[in-house]
Amino acid sequence: MQAYLDNNATTKPTPEVVQAVTEMMTELWANPSSVHRFGQRTRQRIELAREQICNLINANQRDLIFTSGATESLNLAIRGIISSNPDKRTLITTQLEHSAAREPAADLVFKGVNVVYLPVDINGLINPNDLENALNENKDKVGLVAIHWINNETGAIQPIHEIGQLCRQHNAPFLTDATQAVGKVPCNLADLPIDAMAFSGHKFHGPKGIGALYVRRGIHLQPQILGGPHERERRGGTENAPGIVGLAAAAESAAQFLASDGPSTGLAQRDKLESALLNAIPSAVVNSAGAPRIWNTINISFPPLESEAILIMLSENEICAAAGAACSSGSLEPSPVLLAQGIPEPIAHAAVRLSISKYTTDEQIDYAIQTVPFVVEKVRQSMPAA
Amino acid sequence: MQAYLDNNATTKPTPEVVQAVTEMMTELWANPSSVHRFGQRTRQRIELAREQICNLINANQRDLIFTSGATESLNLAIRGIISSNPDKRTLITTQLEHSAAREPAADLVFKGVNVVYLPVDINGLINPNDLENALNENKDKVGLVAIHWINNETGAIQPIHEIGQLCRQHNAPFLTDATQAVGKVPCNLADLPIDAMAFSGHKFHGPKGIGALYVRRGIHLQPQILGGPHERERRGGTENAPGIVGLAAAAESAAQFLASDGPSTGLAQRDKLESALLNAIPSAVVNSAGAPRIWNTINISFPPLESEAILIMLSENEICAAAGAACSSGSLEPSPVLLAQGIPEPIAHAAVRLSISKYTTDEQIDYAIQTVPFVVEKVRQSMPAA
Repeated sequence: MQAYLDNNATTKPTPEVVQAVTEMMTELWANPSSVHRFGQRTRQRIELAREQICNLINANQRDLIFTSGATESLNLAIRGIISSNPDKRTLITTQLEHSAAREPAADLVFKGVNVVYLPVDINGLINPNDLENALNENKDKVGLVAIHWINNETGAIQPIHEIGQLCRQHNAPFLTDATQAVGKVPCNLADLPIDAMAFSGHKFHGPKGIGALYVRRGIHLQPQILGGPHERERRGGTENAPGIVGLAAAAESAAQFLASDGPSTGLAQRDKLESALLNAIPSAVVNSAGAPRIWNTINISFPPLESEAILIMLSENEICAAAGAACSSGSLEPSPVLLAQGIPEPIAHAAVRLSISKYTTDEQIDYAIQTVPFVVEKVRQSMPAA
Repeated sequence: MQAYLDNNATTKPTPEVVQAVTEMMTELWANPSSVHRFGQRTRQRIELAREQICNLINANQRDLIFTSGATESLNLAIRGIISSNPDKRTLITTQLEHSAAREPAADLVFKGVNVVYLPVDINGLINPNDLENALNENKDKVGLVAIHWINNETGAIQPIHEIGQLCRQHNAPFLTDATQAVGKVPCNLADLPIDAMAFSGHKFHGPKGIGALYVRRGIHLQPQILGGPHERERRGGTENAPGIVGLAAAAESAAQFLASDGPSTGLAQRDKLESALLNAIPSAVVNSAGAPRIWNTINISFPPLESEAILIMLSENEICAAAGAACSSGSLEPSPVLLAQGIPEPIAHAAVRLSISKYTTDEQIDYAIQTVPFVVEKVRQSMPAA
């Protein structure tokens, strides 16, 4: 492979993460709920890991629940917070959430919940005034506001400070899907008006199969997976100790990365690639170009081509890229997220996501700058004449 | 550590499992939903793993759903099957289920489900006649029968053939918690009248954080974790590829173990330990002694002592053991499972579970034969005179 540019789908685990998981499987493999010393040593290691992860996001350890990943975290938060407050049966969200939030939100409609979707602009951003209006219109009835921090497809960054402040003013809990944010941008929960936050290990060089849900003290949450008093009775099941300790190793690496010039190096790489592609392919359009965007993501359309054909040809040329979210791959439909933000169908249909990571090298950027225009041209030539 | 006798709480991963997990993290770490070749290679490896796991239980690959563990599997099955059939709002189960089934069952009461608990005898076994009566009394209303295969505390084996046949005759789906069975006793789903079956990797030398739910074709199941079309739209979230491939490695090792004299060697070890303890400690009582029991488990009470004191002293003497389920450890209450099967409180309060595995050596058995009576005597001496 020449260039892995699909880091919003998943990332390569760091050597420290692999080592942590391996050590937990070979050395500290006891059940952390066992009373014997071996179990208690595993328990202590898990609690140290919780502390390490909380250091990355500046959270209180008692507020962090381990789950199998952000999808479970979002399901747990959306159902668990809404169902714990029967007087507040309104959920405010957007159509741009990842399916892991969009689907449980849509499902709540069948349980009698009033689900309000905020409008978004062409860049995919909500307008805080719309949120304020929705909060006023549903005064004292809003059980949850669920808005992602960074969009997984476009990299657009929502105004989460303003969102959170409005939620505080209106006494509505604010959940954010931070799956594309944690480990990639600074996250200080002591300063952010966020009440609940979901994330996954594998999006920032941690293990697959592990994630977390932060829930600020005072926010009520009904557990969704029952079976024992684990995680302060908020999530049953034997703890995935290797995953948890691997997640902690990823958190420690991420903290180092964020304190380094890594993000600005990444931003320079991303901008170089983006400019080069826009120069080389005059019809290309960057989606959400008008939004503040995370340093690692380009969502670029090559009309009148179709994403799928470009992706396959990129893969043949050893570039890994994506169209919409990885989990909707294989679908030939345009991304519902891009359509929902008002991007015309031919542009949405032609969108390719290129997402870099700290492991992306300058050589890979140069390779992509050479190869993507070549591939786009080849796909164009293979299209039947109109 | 001299003797790890807590294998019903969790087991040591095999070297092949550790290697499989490590390889997936270092080599095939792509998102299996990505359309590029790297993603598709990961997808293929997952589907090969599904086949390997299905070989162990003789199931159709399309009927196997990967989850984060048996707890999630049981929650998914109990809620997912009951809620997909609004005309059949009766659940038949027992008070001896693991909390991962007992708690979601109890929770259904709040959703208007009629939860029927079958009586059990002093050995913890249900009587198929009672099941038949319950099925008749709730004719055409039974949405699910949920009864474990092997009890995690006592090792007692339920008459699952008869249970399954009765369920078939009454057109009621049968879910079994096979967490203590899979990998330890033969399981041929082509021959067994089981409609749904939950298990975890870490109970048979696989990774923590991965499990599966088998659901026979034709049984309707509402997904519980939403977010994408993964696992045939039955469980959202990026697949835990290292966990899945690690689970497959455990399944292959387990198949070899079951075809070897491993289980009979284990049975001989268990019987030797059990007889020696009964001989050395005249007041000792084996719980569920009258039931067919799995080869690896002893649940033995040393009245008038208390489990917790014995466990801690065993731990000091380098023996890992348990009282009830690991996840209720730390509680000073007697096991609710033992109480529910009618064992008197002083006996239940004095119960210790010793559970072996294929890694248990004859030397460890001899060490336990020496050490347990010594520990029991020491705890007895430390008791205040009555």
